Amino acid sequence: MTNAATGLPFDDIRNLLKDLPGPDLEAVRACRAREAQLTKPPGALGRLESLSEWLCAWQAHHPPKAERVVVAVFAGNHGVVAQGVAAYPQEVTRQMVANFQNDGAAVNQICKTFGLGLKVFELALDHPTRDITEGAALEEAECAATMAYGMEATEGCDLLCIGEMGIGNTTIAAAMAHGLFGGAAEDWVGPGTGVDGEGLRRKADAVRRAVALHGPHLSDPLEVLRRLGGRELAAMAGAVLAARVQRIPVLIDGYVASAAAAVLKALRPDALDHCMAGHLSAEPAHRRLLEKLELRPILDLGMRLGEGSGAAMAAGVVKAAADLHNGMATFESAGVSGKEE
Amino acid sequence: MTNAATGLPFDDIRNLLKDLPGPDLEAVRACRAREAQLTKPPGALGRLESLSEWLCAWQAHHPPKAERVVVAVFAGNHGVVAQGVAAYPQEVTRQMVANFQNDGAAVNQICKTFGLGLKVFELALDHPTRDITEGAALEEAECAATMAYGMEATEGCDLLCIGEMGIGNTTIAAAMAHGLFGGAAEDWVGPGTGVDGEGLRRKADAVRRAVALHGPHLSDPLEVLRRLGGRELAAMAGAVLAARVQRIPVLIDGYVASAAAAVLKALRPDALDHCMAGHLSAEPAHRRLLEKLELRPILDLGMRLGEGSGAAMAAGVVKAAADLHNGMATFESAGVSGKEE
Repeated sequence: MTNAATGLPFDDIRNLLKDLPGPDLEAVRACRAREAQLTKPPGALGRLESLSEWLCAWQAHHPPKAERVVVAVFAGNHGVVAQGVAAYPQEVTRQMVANFQNDGAAVNQICKTFGLGLKVFELALDHPTRDITEGAALEEAECAATMAYGMEATEGCDLLCIGEMGIGNTTIAAAMAHGLFGGAAEDWVGPGTGVDGEGLRRKADAVRRAVALHGPHLSDPLEVLRRLGGRELAAMAGAVLAARVQRIPVLIDGYVASAAAAVLKALRPDALDHCMAGHLSAEPAHRRLLEKLELRPILDLGMRLGEGSGAAMAAGVVKAAADLHNGMATFESAGVSGKEE
Repeated sequence: MTNAATGLPFDDIRNLLKDLPGPDLEAVRACRAREAQLTKPPGALGRLESLSEWLCAWQAHHPPKAERVVVAVFAGNHGVVAQGVAAYPQEVTRQMVANFQNDGAAVNQICKTFGLGLKVFELALDHPTRDITEGAALEEAECAATMAYGMEATEGCDLLCIGEMGIGNTTIAAAMAHGLFGGAAEDWVGPGTGVDGEGLRRKADAVRRAVALHGPHLSDPLEVLRRLGGRELAAMAGAVLAARVQRIPVLIDGYVASAAAAVLKALRPDALDHCMAGHLSAEPAHRRLLEKLELRPILDLGMRLGEGSGAAMAAGVVKAAADLHNGMATFESAGVSGKEE
């Protein structure tokens, strides 16, 4: 998105949030009824069974579908890198977008392994957001328009994976988490792509100063997004919200994607009920953030790459869950004896 | 296998164990050298990077290969079911073998999702092993022959997943673990496919009595396998051993497969260095057993089905790891800037 002059104001976002669909209990019942007939002891597939139920609940449909899975990667740049908080130069955001387009990045390979689609959204990379230690990252119109743009990610999919690329954006995520959930700046700051020592201290300091600067306005989660966030954060929040309205379950990637989703949770406690955390990132504050979001990660592989890679790995698990539910024989069809009384 | 009159005596197994190949450090170096050039921060793929290294170390080859992955499922029957330890009738073992052959079981669907091959080994199902509370499960010749038969599972694969089917075999696994690692019978007994209350007490009692009966002989891990084990356990131990000799990395499934592998670890502490635990089973004693084996599971999805299902799920992760290592662009080829000094 390069022209951000148009779009929804925040009031329209707030209105959307007022009327979110809930889980489809009829589809859940149908899912459980079939699950009980499959040739395995009840509950023996553990979380894979809950994943099928989750798909049914939020797709409002039985059987669960996981054929058209899309990984949406949103890329943005951040003025806060001027504070010396990132391990890589800002040009890497654009270079990695080219890498996604040329099939060379990590997420491309995972998409190939599991048969997932990939959509890359480049968000005004030549115009980094304002340095959050000096002012609000975005104007309301641009923030809302970027959320609206993110909503396009849901097109044509059964399951949406949300990820990002943006040099400096773990600082942004930390500032948003600190703004939303309090605690100390250090609670929310970690190495990101690899800062340590003096860089890590600068990062915590930038987060502390940004939250102090915007403090009076941070009781409104949309102001947290606008003031402390960035374009890929706004787009991810929009995508997660649109997915709920359109009945598409969402797998959230790591720390930065979780911070975007947290805005919706802060606006409405059940706003992420259609979401699962794809994985627990090695970024230390991700565990704390997922606890705030009441999300239990599907995978814990020590990944900390972003670009949707953890959510895409989890999509492989979810595809297996749906294939199991849909493909297994029943006790009756397979002529297998049931449990002894 | 129906004719078990031929085969190796245990001495040949012991000889095989004396001369196991170690990791190929040259292949590991080549793996690390490429990993460092891929377009991501160092270490950002976490365990996926270690999985690529592990493949290289034990395949003695760089790049890592995970194209031809086989799930080998060994099925056997157990005299100990006479003690009322199982939730399903013994005929279910054969019925489930038919279900595997007809593509109806859980493991079939997972194999389809991730493009894995499936081999089912039916082990004299009409001749259950002797009830371990009354005598040794197997004679030495049959036990060794079954191990040799299991060795055939390695044919034509880059990566081997080891699983099983056998009504009553979590009792067998518990007896073997108790025999190998001590503790109390209750430490090693769990619901299996779903016994509880009185059934669970009978199960612990059977394990206690079996270990007491064979106690004087259990300092030899092969005697643990022969006396307290069963055919699918012997075949899995053979398959894991043959894989080591033939330089094929192994993903071990759940509690029962881990008990089979434990025999090798007890014979030689580094005998499982080419193995990973595919997952942590919901069978409670699996965690304790994996600690004894010094194996950290790849997945923790609350599964407790057996039939190789947890290892097969992990194989999806390993395939992604290899695809990432082999398919990603390098900083140089993609024109991405490196870390700032």
